[in-house]
Amino acid sequence: MNTAKLKELLERVRKGELEIKEAVEILKTLPYENLGYARVDHHRELRLGFPEVVFGKGKTPEELIGIIRSMKSKESNILITKLPPETGKILKREFSEGTYNKEAGAFYIVLHPAKPKGKVLVVSAGTSDIPVAEEAAVTAEVMGTQVERLYDIGIAGIHRVFDNRDKFEDATVIIVVAGMEGALPSVIGGLFPKPVIAVPTSVGYGASFEGLSALLGMLNSCAPGVAVVNIDNGFGAGYIASLIVRASVEEK
Amino acid sequence: MNTAKLKELLERVRKGELEIKEAVEILKTLPYENLGYARVDHHRELRLGFPEVVFGKGKTPEELIGIIRSMKSKESNILITKLPPETGKILKREFSEGTYNKEAGAFYIVLHPAKPKGKVLVVSAGTSDIPVAEEAAVTAEVMGTQVERLYDIGIAGIHRVFDNRDKFEDATVIIVVAGMEGALPSVIGGLFPKPVIAVPTSVGYGASFEGLSALLGMLNSCAPGVAVVNIDNGFGAGYIASLIVRASVEEK
Amino acid sequence: MNTAKLKELLERVRKGELEIKEAVEILKTLPYENLGYARVDHHRELRLGFPEVVFGKGKTPEELIGIIRSMKSKESNILITKLPPETGKILKREFSEGTYNKEAGAFYIVLHPAKPKGKVLVVSAGTSDIPVAEEAAVTAEVMGTQVERLYDIGIAGIHRVFDNRDKFEDATVIIVVAGMEGALPSVIGGLFPKPVIAVPTSVGYGASFEGLSALLGMLNSCAPGVAVVNIDNGFGAGYIASLIVRASVEEK
Amino acid sequence: MNTAKLKELLERVRKGELEIKEAVEILKTLPYENLGYARVDHHRELRLGFPEVVFGKGKTPEELIGIIRSMKSKESNILITKLPPETGKILKREFSEGTYNKEAGAFYIVLHPAKPKGKVLVVSAGTSDIPVAEEAAVTAEVMGTQVERLYDIGIAGIHRVFDNRDKFEDATVIIVVAGMEGALPSVIGGLFPKPVIAVPTSVGYGASFEGLSALLGMLNSCAPGVAVVNIDNGFGAGYIASLIVRASVEEK
Amino acid sequence: MNTAKLKELLERVRKGELEIKEAVEILKTLPYENLGYARVDHHRELRLGFPEVVFGKGKTPEELIGIIRSMKSKESNILITKLPPETGKILKREFSEGTYNKEAGAFYIVLHPAKPKGKVLVVSAGTSDIPVAEEAAVTAEVMGTQVERLYDIGIAGIHRVFDNRDKFEDATVIIVVAGMEGALPSVIGGLFPKPVIAVPTSVGYGASFEGLSALLGMLNSCAPGVAVVNIDNGFGAGYIASLIVRASVEEK
Amino acid sequence: MNTAKLKELLERVRKGELEIKEAVEILKTLPYENLGYARVDHHRELRLGFPEVVFGKGKTPEELIGIIRSMKSKESNILITKLPPETGKILKREFSEGTYNKEAGAFYIVLHPAKPKGKVLVVSAGTSDIPVAEEAAVTAEVMGTQVERLYDIGIAGIHRVFDNRDKFEDATVIIVVAGMEGALPSVIGGLFPKPVIAVPTSVGYGASFEGLSALLGMLNSCAPGVAVVNIDNGFGAGYIASLIVRASVEEK
Amino acid sequence: MNTAKLKELLERVRKGELEIKEAVEILKTLPYENLGYARVDHHRELRLGFPEVVFGKGKTPEELIGIIRSMKSKESNILITKLPPETGKILKREFSEGTYNKEAGAFYIVLHPAKPKGKVLVVSAGTSDIPVAEEAAVTAEVMGTQVERLYDIGIAGIHRVFDNRDKFEDATVIIVVAGMEGALPSVIGGLFPKPVIAVPTSVGYGASFEGLSALLGMLNSCAPGVAVVNIDNGFGAGYIASLIVRASVEEK
Amino acid sequence: MNTAKLKELLERVRKGELEIKEAVEILKTLPYENLGYARVDHHRELRLGFPEVVFGKGKTPEELIGIIRSMKSKESNILITKLPPETGKILKREFSEGTYNKEAGAFYIVLHPAKPKGKVLVVSAGTSDIPVAEEAAVTAEVMGTQVERLYDIGIAGIHRVFDNRDKFEDATVIIVVAGMEGALPSVIGGLFPKPVIAVPTSVGYGASFEGLSALLGMLNSCAPGVAVVNIDNGFGAGYIASLIVRASVEEK
Repeated sequence: MNTAKLKELLERVRKGELEIKEAVEILKTLPYENLGYARVDHHRELRLGFPEVVFGKGKTPEELIGIIRSMKSKESNILITKLPPETGKILKREFSEGTYNKEAGAFYIVLHPAKPKGKVLVVSAGTSDIPVAEEAAVTAEVMGTQVERLYDIGIAGIHRVFDNRDKFEDATVIIVVAGMEGALPSVIGGLFPKPVIAVPTSVGYGASFEGLSALLGMLNSCAPGVAVVNIDNGFGAGYIASLIVRASVEEK
Repeated sequence: MNTAKLKELLERVRKGELEIKEAVEILKTLPYENLGYARVDHHRELRLGFPEVVFGKGKTPEELIGIIRSMKSKESNILITKLPPETGKILKREFSEGTYNKEAGAFYIVLHPAKPKGKVLVVSAGTSDIPVAEEAAVTAEVMGTQVERLYDIGIAGIHRVFDNRDKFEDATVIIVVAGMEGALPSVIGGLFPKPVIAVPTSVGYGASFEGLSALLGMLNSCAPGVAVVNIDNGFGAGYIASLIVRASVEEK
Repeated sequence: MNTAKLKELLERVRKGELEIKEAVEILKTLPYENLGYARVDHHRELRLGFPEVVFGKGKTPEELIGIIRSMKSKESNILITKLPPETGKILKREFSEGTYNKEAGAFYIVLHPAKPKGKVLVVSAGTSDIPVAEEAAVTAEVMGTQVERLYDIGIAGIHRVFDNRDKFEDATVIIVVAGMEGALPSVIGGLFPKPVIAVPTSVGYGASFEGLSALLGMLNSCAPGVAVVNIDNGFGAGYIASLIVRASVEEK
Repeated sequence: MNTAKLKELLERVRKGELEIKEAVEILKTLPYENLGYARVDHHRELRLGFPEVVFGKGKTPEELIGIIRSMKSKESNILITKLPPETGKILKREFSEGTYNKEAGAFYIVLHPAKPKGKVLVVSAGTSDIPVAEEAAVTAEVMGTQVERLYDIGIAGIHRVFDNRDKFEDATVIIVVAGMEGALPSVIGGLFPKPVIAVPTSVGYGASFEGLSALLGMLNSCAPGVAVVNIDNGFGAGYIASLIVRASVEEK
Repeated sequence: MNTAKLKELLERVRKGELEIKEAVEILKTLPYENLGYARVDHHRELRLGFPEVVFGKGKTPEELIGIIRSMKSKESNILITKLPPETGKILKREFSEGTYNKEAGAFYIVLHPAKPKGKVLVVSAGTSDIPVAEEAAVTAEVMGTQVERLYDIGIAGIHRVFDNRDKFEDATVIIVVAGMEGALPSVIGGLFPKPVIAVPTSVGYGASFEGLSALLGMLNSCAPGVAVVNIDNGFGAGYIASLIVRASVEEK
Repeated sequence: MNTAKLKELLERVRKGELEIKEAVEILKTLPYENLGYARVDHHRELRLGFPEVVFGKGKTPEELIGIIRSMKSKESNILITKLPPETGKILKREFSEGTYNKEAGAFYIVLHPAKPKGKVLVVSAGTSDIPVAEEAAVTAEVMGTQVERLYDIGIAGIHRVFDNRDKFEDATVIIVVAGMEGALPSVIGGLFPKPVIAVPTSVGYGASFEGLSALLGMLNSCAPGVAVVNIDNGFGAGYIASLIVRASVEEK
Repeated sequence: MNTAKLKELLERVRKGELEIKEAVEILKTLPYENLGYARVDHHRELRLGFPEVVFGKGKTPEELIGIIRSMKSKESNILITKLPPETGKILKREFSEGTYNKEAGAFYIVLHPAKPKGKVLVVSAGTSDIPVAEEAAVTAEVMGTQVERLYDIGIAGIHRVFDNRDKFEDATVIIVVAGMEGALPSVIGGLFPKPVIAVPTSVGYGASFEGLSALLGMLNSCAPGVAVVNIDNGFGAGYIASLIVRASVEEK
Repeated sequence: MNTAKLKELLERVRKGELEIKEAVEILKTLPYENLGYARVDHHRELRLGFPEVVFGKGKTPEELIGIIRSMKSKESNILITKLPPETGKILKREFSEGTYNKEAGAFYIVLHPAKPKGKVLVVSAGTSDIPVAEEAAVTAEVMGTQVERLYDIGIAGIHRVFDNRDKFEDATVIIVVAGMEGALPSVIGGLFPKPVIAVPTSVGYGASFEGLSALLGMLNSCAPGVAVVNIDNGFGAGYIASLIVRASVEEK
């Protein structure tokens, strides 16, 4: 309920068109409706890019087809994550306008093309980190953001960072995905004055303790422009990176 | 060494003014100088806001006075963090143009006023989290960013978030500082489509394990627009928040 | 051995019907029998609701059928937890008066209907938390307590708490089941002056460390009316919640 | 704002006593005021016992005196926790109607006497656990709850539990405070069908890891009626125990 | 090489039967041979009970049959641990004089009967702890020690300890096997002045962290006569308990 | 209450000297009194060696003097642990028959001389481990056990173990105190067929994590005759070692 | 680009054969090419031994055959690690000049024979540690280093170290592979003045916490000549050991 | 006892100058003396560089002066670590031939100059890591090894690595000292084919967990030539680095 509708209601009270008892009933729940309204409002103004996101894991192809059909009416981009390959292929067959990205384990339908301004650069340290990096990249794309990918830039081959200086300098925000010691975000954060979103991965063994090593490394980065999301959370990194690009676009 | 200087050198070679042997010596180290140059170049284009930052902890007032004097010539904003009160007062007496923020334990001299676009909202959950929040706020301000503060918005008094909806909606990026269970960033990230930088603090006792509890809570946030910095790292949060605002300003 | 029987024994001693030597033998073991008796006594006075509980995991359908048959003679409610679906169906076929709750993985026979006073509200943060929430709900019900369910009330959709204010205010005790950052109990504990039993779940990944994140979050809750049970321990939460409701009923 | 006041406002609108524009302004903030009102309302109906609680740590005697003076007008019980001895004595001198409990490090003014129904039994395992136990006891008392204390009932002297069977059976809820292996709540929970709130303490050394050992022991209790609060959190245990007793009183 | 042989060697030197150069060669390696000799000596004097122990896990039935055949010539008791059921049955078929204990996953051939003095009491807290308890019991038996078993004596049914006071008082050493909170050794150690060897098990879930909870609980036992072995290490407990009984027998 | 007293009571009932009602009252509490009696009985039969133990930490000299005076009447050996040097000296001055061991931080009065049979060997890995080793040694001595000390036998000087083979072979039980990697118990347990009680110490730095490293090392010992007590728990090791020696003496 | 080529370029500039603009373009990217060149240069001078290493895990036999074919042209030794047995056999069939080491899970083709100077001694504590030890041994061999193996030298059979003193004294560097308490490196480091590379393994159970116990033990070694690699990282140990031997060869 | 002395003894036996019984007595203890002798022998052949090392912490100046005086007769280099400044100055005054390195907290007397071959490069990431780096450097120097220092080469200023390529290429072994995320060893190990000894430091705060972050980062290094010592263990790094250089020198 917005101000205009509230005014209208009060006018109907004044004119005696609405019983005071009825008005009380409507207004009693106002806080919560209003709150919900605020959220709807946000969604409306942002709807051109914000995707509807569904975790695909554990859902049958039939369930997912039903969900996607109902979502298509909302004119939002649609993103299904954590899909097994078979399900991905079934969805692609059903919705030919969609894309199935096998590496990321994601299926998506993009109704709204990427905005021309702002870019996310997604960097992975090793080849084993690519699935998480792809999840980040696809999430950002489905949110209407341009994405550049730069994979297999390990700390042990640091010269590849220098070879691609242009891509780093063109990015609005950089997502760095790395397992093992998780040192790549520090190196990149030390070279380029850009916000870096670091994603630790569970790639490694022994004292990597399922990603703890990379997580701690990134949190303790000596380069100050680095913030971190959960282990293997490509989705979260793509999401906040898109919010950052969006913020920069909105400011204009 | 920039392109102009490289061209000049080559011209001197062509004219015979420079021996080839000498030119080889100069160019052999070019990679590294050039790299340094890249960094200087970045600095120049960004200098209007990037502060020179010094960790004040463990340095004597005399050392700090010397450092600040030498820095003043660089025309950068200056930020000294982690200062004990006595030292802060001495610096204020010495450099009357500077500001000593006791809560943040920081002294700073701002030569370049905040840019008119973009704003960081710094939120703290409890009163004990304020020093870390102030460190974030001051860092962002010294980097030339506008800052709004909103302190003591605990999870247990969640209605205060709703009371200040405007401030949240006005911000380009939101810094949320919280100890104990660290739940506030999730609540805020769930309500406002803005990038949230979460700062866990070591506030708490027992099973807070010096901030581990808040850190894990924030990393596992069910709201996707949240990224996290190290425990008590107000400086890092203020820094990346400023980079985000700057990105948004640059894009224009 | 109760007081009446003790009196009878002493009277038989006085009358010379019982040799002192024999009486000494009987009384020598009294401490332990008596202790057992104390427990039996408790059970008797509470038997209308206290279920006999069996962990179903790893037991064959035949074993469980045997156990249930022997239990039915005790006139207690019966609860079998952690059942695989096939076994649940077999038990339902065998004991048609029982109920098999697939979500909770529990089979139960309720001989004593819920008491009219006191109510447990079971809240889950996400849909993945529902099995643990159902285990809590079923346990409370089998213990003779009224249960209200409110599922999928995530921190990221905090307005759903407000939408259901009545249910929270009607409850004697609130069980909150949540994984990931485990922040929901803090929000609820901050809004409603009720005892909150928090159940962390192992839902999450990466730095959730199998429920550690939610556990620490709940233990560090800034809302003071929150106590915590083991990760995924729906049974324990349902049990103590019923004890609390029972206490409130007994006081009258 | 309650229903009556809302009705009155609408009537003034109908009668033309209130401009629609003004009414819109008032109603626009209704959600939040209403929310606050809800909380105030709760407070009013519960005020006879709910204390105003202040963490005394790090506050000067002057600050505390000011706070207590302002609180006294609210007709609530007042509780200041974590006080150093000197400050406690100063407060006692200033407010002779108050009590300073040195062991608990707490100062309190109780305006509303304990309710006649319901009782909290506070048990400590060792003498070193007494300060935490006293914090729990005092908190419950200031919240208007009757408290019985039973200290130094270690697992190694388990017979003391049996010696005091009456006290356990009289309690509505039992708080058990223990460090080291934290086993006492299991023993008590196995003997008495009462809700047990377990408080691990940091008492111990070496592999007690500052209370972690006791915390894990209590969370893994094989007795099902046990829920746990943070390490050394006597305040939290006293608070939830009082909520439980209150619930039992309200039900009548 | 023992003293007699050394003497003989020196006599051969004196008589000129052995070249000094050759004697130097032999004596140069004496330290290491001598060391081995010391060990053989120990074994001889203790052989009546010390079993030859083989970890059965990952070995084929054929390999184990070969090993057992070669061992039988040594006149030692033989113990094979961690056997899968099929292999156990095959060994029993091959060596009819042996025993296959399915619960403990152990096969053993006892050539030397238990000594009449000293007894190990093996106590388990729950039924799930029995396999580890049986491993302890079988190990002690194969080492020639008398064993008494007392299973399912949980903390929540503490009265069963009192019911079996005689068994506790008859034991030379008590092995207590428990998972979850691991509190039983404290209770037993507090009641009986006997050495208690505590075995934490990985029984439990959630915050039991694979036995860490029980391990820490036992290490922090407030009863002083308790020492602890590794999680699930029934073998180690049975072994040291037998050494303790042996020590008591040897002393005579 | 012992059997004789129980018989006497029943005879008074038979003779009519005691009312049945009164007898019921007395017998109702019998379980608990009896239990206490059992404990007293144990103590009596063992009193010749079992010390009265007091943790001296945090107690004033005056308090300790009072406690010791009251203890002296019990004819037990007395042991005060964790004493600061000044207090130790005061106690020595007050009770000239006692001994103050500065290294162990312990004061003790031994009324009953060591038994001639059985011996505890206390081994320390480094010189920094000696205070914990001394606490173990003194505890065993005060419990009436003979003690041999062997200090500074580090893993890095393993030959010292061989040099002292006789002492190892003479011992009934061996206490091994070690910090850092805690490997010494494994080496000793692998060489001598004796029960080894391992005491990890907090000696070390960095990744020793306050003794965790030594603790884990000892729990994972590949030598099977090793059991472990808490970090720095010399008292516990001395206590269980004495129980083991006592068991061996009692068996005769 | 090396110095000669740089000189040539400058000469072409001087002679006017190369436009300054073109030269600027070439030199602008020099840093990065140069950097790459540095690496190539290193490789060239070291190529006689440095293997091309491929992680075989998760790659199909076809992929691996393709990779090996392309590698063979580089005249490097080739090492494929973490191979399942079937794949190993296929590779052996395809490349008969190669070796498949089943224990190490490695396939390798050695084109350059071991250098005559320097030797790595690989020691394993138990038989379960052999796969990791073999991975270390094979890695060193493929890098052109001589390797001596010494397996099953447990701490509990410490005399085997003395029996093989010659092998330890002949080695340039010693790799020690051990699980459980990980104490063997300390013993060896204390006896022989050689660099020791310690490899913790995940062999063990319970409180070995997947190799954490051995890792901490090795890091806290009281023998100073010990450095540690990741849990189960035989490859890393073999690699650094070869670098050490190489360093010693190069120095000549 | 060396071979010559053994021969002499046997000759005296042959000549009848030594009774066989006496010879047996002497030879019986040979293993252990011999073992000690082996160690002495090692020391002798290595004595030109191996320092006598004393931990200075907790020792009085008088004790240290006594120790140094007795050591000076051994003709070894002498190293005292962990000295407070005052004690360092006193030692310098007493032994003017020695050096007191305040940064490293070490005092040393070097009687044997560095060997001309082999060099250790000690690199520190930040200025706060310098004390640990200096401890490493001084240790290596006192062991007779040449040392080059390169401090304040943080990951965030990675170009400084390239600027000093020569120093890296000249080193036989590289020690890298770093706190926080500990990423520098990976970068260096990826660029230079040299053995890298990584020293994590406790520099950092929050989620650095006293050096755990750096330790895990270094253990998980994706560059294979890296081995790790304990947190803050500069001494250990300097020691093994010297052993490596020595190995290279010995091989010649």
